[in-house]
Amino acid sequence: MSTDTSAEIKIFERRESEARSYCRGFDTVFTSARGSEMTDTQGRSYIDFLAGCSSLNYGHNDPDMKIALIEHLTDDGLAHALDLHTDTKAAFLQAFETHILKPRDLDHRVMFTGPTGANAVEAAMKLARKVTGRTNIVAFTNGFHGVTLGALAATGNGYHRGGAGIELHGVTRMPFDGYFGEGVDTADFLEAMLRDTSSGLDAPAAILLETVQGEGGLNAARPEWIKRVADLAHEHGALLIIDDIQAGCGRTGTFFSFEEMGFVPDIVTMAKSISGFGLPMALTLVRPQYDVFGPAEHNGTFRGNTHAFVTARVAIEKFWADDAFQKTLVEKAMILTTALGELAEMIPGARLKGRGLMQGVDVGSGELAGRICAHAFGKGLVIETSGPEDEVVKVLAPLTTPEDVFRKGLNILLEAAREVLSEEPKSIAAE
Amino acid sequence: MSTDTSAEIKIFERRESEARSYCRGFDTVFTSARGSEMTDTQGRSYIDFLAGCSSLNYGHNDPDMKIALIEHLTDDGLAHALDLHTDTKAAFLQAFETHILKPRDLDHRVMFTGPTGANAVEAAMKLARKVTGRTNIVAFTNGFHGVTLGALAATGNGYHRGGAGIELHGVTRMPFDGYFGEGVDTADFLEAMLRDTSSGLDAPAAILLETVQGEGGLNAARPEWIKRVADLAHEHGALLIIDDIQAGCGRTGTFFSFEEMGFVPDIVTMAKSISGFGLPMALTLVRPQYDVFGPAEHNGTFRGNTHAFVTARVAIEKFWADDAFQKTLVEKAMILTTALGELAEMIPGARLKGRGLMQGVDVGSGELAGRICAHAFGKGLVIETSGPEDEVVKVLAPLTTPEDVFRKGLNILLEAAREVLSEEPKSIAAE
Amino acid sequence: MSTDTSAEIKIFERRESEARSYCRGFDTVFTSARGSEMTDTQGRSYIDFLAGCSSLNYGHNDPDMKIALIEHLTDDGLAHALDLHTDTKAAFLQAFETHILKPRDLDHRVMFTGPTGANAVEAAMKLARKVTGRTNIVAFTNGFHGVTLGALAATGNGYHRGGAGIELHGVTRMPFDGYFGEGVDTADFLEAMLRDTSSGLDAPAAILLETVQGEGGLNAARPEWIKRVADLAHEHGALLIIDDIQAGCGRTGTFFSFEEMGFVPDIVTMAKSISGFGLPMALTLVRPQYDVFGPAEHNGTFRGNTHAFVTARVAIEKFWADDAFQKTLVEKAMILTTALGELAEMIPGARLKGRGLMQGVDVGSGELAGRICAHAFGKGLVIETSGPEDEVVKVLAPLTTPEDVFRKGLNILLEAAREVLSEEPKSIAAE
Amino acid sequence: MSTDTSAEIKIFERRESEARSYCRGFDTVFTSARGSEMTDTQGRSYIDFLAGCSSLNYGHNDPDMKIALIEHLTDDGLAHALDLHTDTKAAFLQAFETHILKPRDLDHRVMFTGPTGANAVEAAMKLARKVTGRTNIVAFTNGFHGVTLGALAATGNGYHRGGAGIELHGVTRMPFDGYFGEGVDTADFLEAMLRDTSSGLDAPAAILLETVQGEGGLNAARPEWIKRVADLAHEHGALLIIDDIQAGCGRTGTFFSFEEMGFVPDIVTMAKSISGFGLPMALTLVRPQYDVFGPAEHNGTFRGNTHAFVTARVAIEKFWADDAFQKTLVEKAMILTTALGELAEMIPGARLKGRGLMQGVDVGSGELAGRICAHAFGKGLVIETSGPEDEVVKVLAPLTTPEDVFRKGLNILLEAAREVLSEEPKSIAAE
Repeated sequence: MSTDTSAEIKIFERRESEARSYCRGFDTVFTSARGSEMTDTQGRSYIDFLAGCSSLNYGHNDPDMKIALIEHLTDDGLAHALDLHTDTKAAFLQAFETHILKPRDLDHRVMFTGPTGANAVEAAMKLARKVTGRTNIVAFTNGFHGVTLGALAATGNGYHRGGAGIELHGVTRMPFDGYFGEGVDTADFLEAMLRDTSSGLDAPAAILLETVQGEGGLNAARPEWIKRVADLAHEHGALLIIDDIQAGCGRTGTFFSFEEMGFVPDIVTMAKSISGFGLPMALTLVRPQYDVFGPAEHNGTFRGNTHAFVTARVAIEKFWADDAFQKTLVEKAMILTTALGELAEMIPGARLKGRGLMQGVDVGSGELAGRICAHAFGKGLVIETSGPEDEVVKVLAPLTTPEDVFRKGLNILLEAAREVLSEEPKSIAAE
Repeated sequence: MSTDTSAEIKIFERRESEARSYCRGFDTVFTSARGSEMTDTQGRSYIDFLAGCSSLNYGHNDPDMKIALIEHLTDDGLAHALDLHTDTKAAFLQAFETHILKPRDLDHRVMFTGPTGANAVEAAMKLARKVTGRTNIVAFTNGFHGVTLGALAATGNGYHRGGAGIELHGVTRMPFDGYFGEGVDTADFLEAMLRDTSSGLDAPAAILLETVQGEGGLNAARPEWIKRVADLAHEHGALLIIDDIQAGCGRTGTFFSFEEMGFVPDIVTMAKSISGFGLPMALTLVRPQYDVFGPAEHNGTFRGNTHAFVTARVAIEKFWADDAFQKTLVEKAMILTTALGELAEMIPGARLKGRGLMQGVDVGSGELAGRICAHAFGKGLVIETSGPEDEVVKVLAPLTTPEDVFRKGLNILLEAAREVLSEEPKSIAAE
Repeated sequence: MSTDTSAEIKIFERRESEARSYCRGFDTVFTSARGSEMTDTQGRSYIDFLAGCSSLNYGHNDPDMKIALIEHLTDDGLAHALDLHTDTKAAFLQAFETHILKPRDLDHRVMFTGPTGANAVEAAMKLARKVTGRTNIVAFTNGFHGVTLGALAATGNGYHRGGAGIELHGVTRMPFDGYFGEGVDTADFLEAMLRDTSSGLDAPAAILLETVQGEGGLNAARPEWIKRVADLAHEHGALLIIDDIQAGCGRTGTFFSFEEMGFVPDIVTMAKSISGFGLPMALTLVRPQYDVFGPAEHNGTFRGNTHAFVTARVAIEKFWADDAFQKTLVEKAMILTTALGELAEMIPGARLKGRGLMQGVDVGSGELAGRICAHAFGKGLVIETSGPEDEVVKVLAPLTTPEDVFRKGLNILLEAAREVLSEEPKSIAAE
Repeated sequence: MSTDTSAEIKIFERRESEARSYCRGFDTVFTSARGSEMTDTQGRSYIDFLAGCSSLNYGHNDPDMKIALIEHLTDDGLAHALDLHTDTKAAFLQAFETHILKPRDLDHRVMFTGPTGANAVEAAMKLARKVTGRTNIVAFTNGFHGVTLGALAATGNGYHRGGAGIELHGVTRMPFDGYFGEGVDTADFLEAMLRDTSSGLDAPAAILLETVQGEGGLNAARPEWIKRVADLAHEHGALLIIDDIQAGCGRTGTFFSFEEMGFVPDIVTMAKSISGFGLPMALTLVRPQYDVFGPAEHNGTFRGNTHAFVTARVAIEKFWADDAFQKTLVEKAMILTTALGELAEMIPGARLKGRGLMQGVDVGSGELAGRICAHAFGKGLVIETSGPEDEVVKVLAPLTTPEDVFRKGLNILLEAAREVLSEEPKSIAAE
């Protein structure tokens, strides 16, 4: 088997672009996966605390979704249907309305965009500009919204921005909650800039934010800050766009990350776990009064990925028809907080970050975080970093991870950290 | 069953965005499809001459791909793998190298972008800008490259451009081959503008074109014009990007639409039929010297849609391992040309357009083309228009359509045209 | 005479664009001016506390400049010389080097731009971008740098920005000193954004600022804040551009507004009072290592307004060859502070703003400020407001105003304020 | 005296920016000028065929303007008056209305912009965008409209564009009349692009052009082409902006360069010779229905250069109150055509270009044109080149040049050409 692996890796080196990335940190060839575990060509098994960057909130190959998809295939259900009506799409919409939108009193329409999060964000930004006739969009420090040119303008990460090769425009950057430390409410800044007609902040078409910044380092905004930003948006004639691509689908403990905060976003973007199965699918939810695109004004060939609609429907019916699943998330989040608290205590200056099942530890440097993750991988745990300097060890386990597997994974992480810290005791203080 | 359809249609009206489009022209609810035929909830069957806008070049639910995908599912093969190494991806790359790249002497690397054509185009544009340090990209009248902000700047269609709500930039528009009618070689114009340092055309990072403009109205550029544009690009330090998203994968008669034209594109974008099965997948092929993105500098959550890699591998092995399939395309193209010639003769001023299995008839007005397609749909044929005013009746049948089905579909089209023309004999002259 | 005035005003109404502005507040027709006093067609005399928005720092028709210019005219000296060498330009450069640059240890080169402040700013911005290969420029809330498209992007005022009719780009806005009130050092914000590679602040080509924001409401930055911004610019590879168009030429008490703050700006823009006589002239001072424009790469027909060089030389030789003039400015600034303090005390919440002979009072509302200025004009004083809501009564008297005239003007202002405040005692509180 | 010159030149080398340009080709120090002749520090006299790039259409130091300006100075007339009403400005407006606008049935309002041509163009572009709510402006190959960021986007010259250091945007480039040689009417191209909704040409706010492109190489558009472009603009809801900065004020034989062509421009930009004396002044003429800027929405400190209003009034009253002056231009243009025809005949492939007193000869290479001008300077003639490669020897003599001086200058030019051509007989063919 090892020969195979090496042959396979050669084809990647020979023919795959240098843009490939995760494979560099997890240097093996994976073959299959089930639930929270992945297997490589060597037959080695790994606990998955990356979960496709939160695209696999229900784990790999959920058996009910799998059966439904095999059945769909067997019956020659449509795979690709542009935006034609299909019974499959109808069933998804019905489930989404019944179990997600109605119980939360949301009157949003569902726009099936091209099946990438970036595309959902691009649609949202275009729509807000069309609705308001304004061009400027307020986004936040450390926000991540994708790397196509429109979305990239809203993304804070300098490395990704540099890839544009052209000036990014149409976005004004504001400090996220907590950006200047405690004692400074950055919403005051936003408000001052919006009120002052000479601040140079052009009246925004939208304010675009993640409630928890996943790629940006698991920065969780306080609900009251988010509510205030929502109110400021509406006070100043701007739409509020919540990018729930990474934080949505239960990741923070509720289906949407912004539930029970006292406001209704005008637009919500979803992708990653919306299909339930890791299949490409993205949505832009739009309040009816802002649903102003003409037919195909924003379009995309794969906006009718029908396989994804099959699994997405099952996911909703299985996990969100009642509150049983949601309740389990509270417990898991507590287990996670406890374990990460232990990790944080090992490292002077380290801090817990995030919310729900989207938590991590800022260990002070990307170098240290990277070494911890590398050691964990050596011990059978797939886990990644985030943050501007990759300084946050980030746990994004499937929400469905059984408690014993979850604890096992966390133990690996703690053990890996201990090993790393014992190696070089002097250089470990967080900055 | 009719009650079901109506209930299903209500959910679309209630909850799907006004951006939905094709469903408006084909007002039924589809349930399944096989090969070149689709079935709706009423049990009615349709011949498919739209083929997911050329995303289903091998028809719906190809049995070999289907079996492979069911097997992959059954074995808990990965569905979503970010850009981790998987055996499935290795097998796709191997097949793509062996059957596509090597026989055509192409040394390109494969960049797995977000699984939409627009994303592949965005990656291509960013890359060309990064490579050259220039920002301007030359694109052509009636070109269509997607609707995310970077790609939309290169798209000519005014309706889609209007959806941006913000100025599009970074692209200079040049006239496509034949834009000023016979007798004017528009490459002369491009050359004059490139040579004149005061023309106002900033030195381009890339020249981006489709060899046959699908959405733009089936405008097929002459090989010698394309070759000249390729030479001009290289002479002026620009990369040549061929957008083969719609015209590739056999649609024009060869795997790539630019084969045997005497040049090697620096970058090629692929999507639509690359997965073979209609699943979301997109590639950007890049010559090694221009493969300069750093790890994840351009990224996207769904760039590892492993299901698509499964079917894409089967598609390549089944259809492109030898020249048997390609040969059938020549015959079918002839059948198509003959039938469309008949159609064109019915309408004064109408003209045949396109190349290979990407042909159509400019009937002079969108109104007439629309009525012909509507009549055809009433008779069981799914067919669409294209062009700036939707004035081109466009045939994009699966390449695998059996000859009898193909002829049957073409006959429906001709009959539909006859009916429409007999209805209103006075208003049919092409403009 | 009154008939004449009315006839003259009719021609303005009939043929001058609605863009005309100051004439609306000072509704008479002026005929002549000398020193700090202006006369209208009715023979009425006004004290000038506007001074051409700081373009007439040495008053109207300074006798020495006037004689020199008449002599130049009499001798057929060149009026317009493009950027040819002239003896007149040489003499100006010599004086500028001897009396301004050398004594302040400045090694800057003088770029004669088009004779508007906006043009000097455009040249500065282009140059910084060319030098660094970066495009982003940091400018500040309430900054005013002109209304041509490049400079307008750096200008904060929403009314002027709205006039662009197109998105402004290439500039990131940061909060000026004091923007969030006491206790918050906005330089901390700038530093945090510059250091964080994921802040979304693209590495800047330059940081551009006025030390005292004239149009923005007489906001005077603290020297230590400016020094810190200067240091941050250099630390992050950005040029520091001081826009000294309004605050320069002695207005703040020294020739340049940034003297003795412990840093050397890379670029300085000058206009307004640089000609001494109110004639159109602008300069961009550039450190030699950044003097990288090729011949005429930035050009402009009127960059050699030779009449202005004549008066500019006289101004420098007369006022800046020794420190006598500068010393008088200290005394006048004290008189001004005292008088404005009196004004501020009349109005609850009002605050003194500015520095040197560029001071004013924020009276809390544009409405109140406007009424005070209107009353003052009725009493023979030309004085204007500034600030985002025109809420600052601004004194910009000629620096050469004799003490008695200066006190007289200030008394008119105080009297006008008293009148206004006695009229409507209830609505006067500053917000 | 030679010592002085060298000392003076040293100050330029030491302290003037490298952006200085004309002084490099005319390497002396000028001291005075009268009519069409200039004098340097050596007492040497030169005939001026550059005329401040058409800013000195009435020659240097016209005696009547000079007297008026000295009188204005003596009487303490205002030098700088922002946009206050002055008797001087009223008198200018009255003269401009009486002698220029009314006789030509033009109802335009006069907007006094910042006193540079670029500023007048920026105001025009902003205004067209504000009026139409569109952002795109059509400009032409080889057009020159200034180098501030908005105007520079409309300028074709690559060297100047490169100076921006940032992407220029908001402008689409179209081929000027004759750009593709005889037999191709480039207005067909413009029309096709405007009519085709998928051409990628966004509906323009304005079409901006010079009737004769001065800097672009004396390309004179045919009146019928200009008329057609004007009609296309109006047909497509765009304003027509004529940039008459270089070609206006009599340069082509009439006051405006577009007279008697059968259309009324919506906006006209003027600068260069509008003051008559070479003083900085610029105007944007706007039809009343488009005069939509609010007070000071576009502003500029030096928009009230009152000295320029004095001389501008005299210029209009002296030269345009009747048709005597205009008639002399016809004769002079014939003399010029004859002489340049002689020059063109000396050089194989050379061609006459331009119109009126704005003519030149394309000698085929910038190198040859440069040598001819250099020789001419050696013989006492100041003359420059233009065109993308500086390949056009351009005559821009004052319109008031006495016939004998004019012929003398032309003879010097011919003699210089003969000398150059006799030096290197083999390399002189035009390309």
